[in-house]
Amino acid sequence: MKNRICKLLHIRYPLIQAGMVWCSGWRLAAAVSKAGGLGIIGSGSMYPEVLDEHLQKCRGSGVRNFAVNLPLMYPQIEDHIGLILKHRVPIVFTSAGNPKTYTSFLKDAGIKVVHVVSSKKFALKAEAAGADAVVAEGFEAGGHNGREETTTFCLVPEVADAVQIPVIAAGGIADGRSMHAALALGAEGVQIGSRFVATEESSAHSSFKKRVTQANEGDTQLTLKELTPVRLLNNGFYQDIVKAYENHRSADDLRQLLGRGRAKRGMFEGDLEQGELEIGQVAARIHQIMPAAAVVEQIIAEYREAGAHHLGGRFSF
Amino acid sequence: MKNRICKLLHIRYPLIQAGMVWCSGWRLAAAVSKAGGLGIIGSGSMYPEVLDEHLQKCRGSGVRNFAVNLPLMYPQIEDHIGLILKHRVPIVFTSAGNPKTYTSFLKDAGIKVVHVVSSKKFALKAEAAGADAVVAEGFEAGGHNGREETTTFCLVPEVADAVQIPVIAAGGIADGRSMHAALALGAEGVQIGSRFVATEESSAHSSFKKRVTQANEGDTQLTLKELTPVRLLNNGFYQDIVKAYENHRSADDLRQLLGRGRAKRGMFEGDLEQGELEIGQVAARIHQIMPAAAVVEQIIAEYREAGAHHLGGRFSF
Repeated sequence: MKNRICKLLHIRYPLIQAGMVWCSGWRLAAAVSKAGGLGIIGSGSMYPEVLDEHLQKCRGSGVRNFAVNLPLMYPQIEDHIGLILKHRVPIVFTSAGNPKTYTSFLKDAGIKVVHVVSSKKFALKAEAAGADAVVAEGFEAGGHNGREETTTFCLVPEVADAVQIPVIAAGGIADGRSMHAALALGAEGVQIGSRFVATEESSAHSSFKKRVTQANEGDTQLTLKELTPVRLLNNGFYQDIVKAYENHRSADDLRQLLGRGRAKRGMFEGDLEQGELEIGQVAARIHQIMPAAAVVEQIIAEYREAGAHHLGGRFSF
Repeated sequence: MKNRICKLLHIRYPLIQAGMVWCSGWRLAAAVSKAGGLGIIGSGSMYPEVLDEHLQKCRGSGVRNFAVNLPLMYPQIEDHIGLILKHRVPIVFTSAGNPKTYTSFLKDAGIKVVHVVSSKKFALKAEAAGADAVVAEGFEAGGHNGREETTTFCLVPEVADAVQIPVIAAGGIADGRSMHAALALGAEGVQIGSRFVATEESSAHSSFKKRVTQANEGDTQLTLKELTPVRLLNNGFYQDIVKAYENHRSADDLRQLLGRGRAKRGMFEGDLEQGELEIGQVAARIHQIMPAAAVVEQIIAEYREAGAHHLGGRFSF
């Protein structure tokens, strides 16, 4: 059995750049896809007209194989889906919502559908809904996260044993070693977010990119569990959340504190103190801003150097 | 470079059974050591006279190579150290305290010292104190846990890059796949706790063993972070903690709720409702109570089946 993710997504390496709010526009997606991985445009932070522009530019760059990440709670999701059809996007990664709603529709349109999950339970639901693969994303991942707090180490084998469709591991992966480890746990591909935030092509603000490369262990926390759990960097805004908890504030108060536009303010506009800086624990292991293609090449070189591709089967690509 | 943990600890397989309160007495340690791994007697839940008896019986079983886990905050630690010297215990795993205090003393007595850490910072301190190796234990591990919440996936490469001494991975490891993944991340050995709770030789109460094999994903939580963070199973006692948090109780109130003897009550006496049931996230992947030797054999067979030993270097033993 050869690596099914490479076959399913028509990619050279089973290495997928995560669709991320404010960080992954067409430039990043195109660069990763050109380098042999799969680039994803993160549509969750885009108005339909912005997504339209990104899809046009991605197509214009000559890249044929790429994906769009579609958060299923997105308010104008029908518009987004219209654009995905219009630009004949070949692959859609869905997340944060019920996979039943759109999977059949997208598949009927000839689109490959991959759903992001944080538990075995949701993986089985995604498979039942017809998803072609699942991303199993652990507690260490940046941004929105599951309530069970299951880590990549525990989640990936659990999901891989439960479903027949191939599994892509996410959370804590940033180099060839962690790619090898993810495949050892039963995944057939990896989805990498944080490492691609710190690339030249990422649309993150340069201050946020730099902050990511300076992160140390323990610098991220999973918080706001009463709303949607989110992993972010410790800063002035996070300290305000800590104070709100100390003062026993309600979920409504927390929602008000979060307000609107915090993520944009932090990650896109570079307000490192009062913005929301979503990033994974693995930021502590990212020290350099590099071109996205160099990241792909380095990870694959490290993976090959470890000899993992000699293990055959899903390890071999 | 061959596997340094096998060489350091004189073991056939770099597979270590964690020293655990109430679960790992001489029977379990002897069984694991006889099977080619390293068995550890968990002294944290033993009075000195109990430890004396366990060491005598372990020696009496004909096992020459085994270790004692020594929590550095143990109130009668000097008595425990006296017994370790008396019975010429060859290896000590220290945890939960400053490695500076006893490492040199133990090493001067010809004892190998391995220190358990949850961060790179503490790994560097252990190395500076003269430890022969460190256990890097991730957020998913059962029982007492670090404050940074760094998972095995992020912690192991971070520690392996920081120190020169070999690293043993812990947290989320229960089979040959996860052992392979841990070594891929840079570890040279694995420490396994939860899986050995569910063995015939474990001193855990039979009801607790059975409960472990029935655990599902999301059934454990890391809680009591104001005291010492601990991962345990959701039960009546855990629900009392949840209520205490909802009522904004103080750390002192939580300490009073915890009281004394909860862990013994749960894990040793089998009170599944009001006892403290310390176990790792990976309990969701443990389905059977087996003899400890069969666990060791199965894990090594799975590891070999994956072909990981062909990778050479630390992968080869």
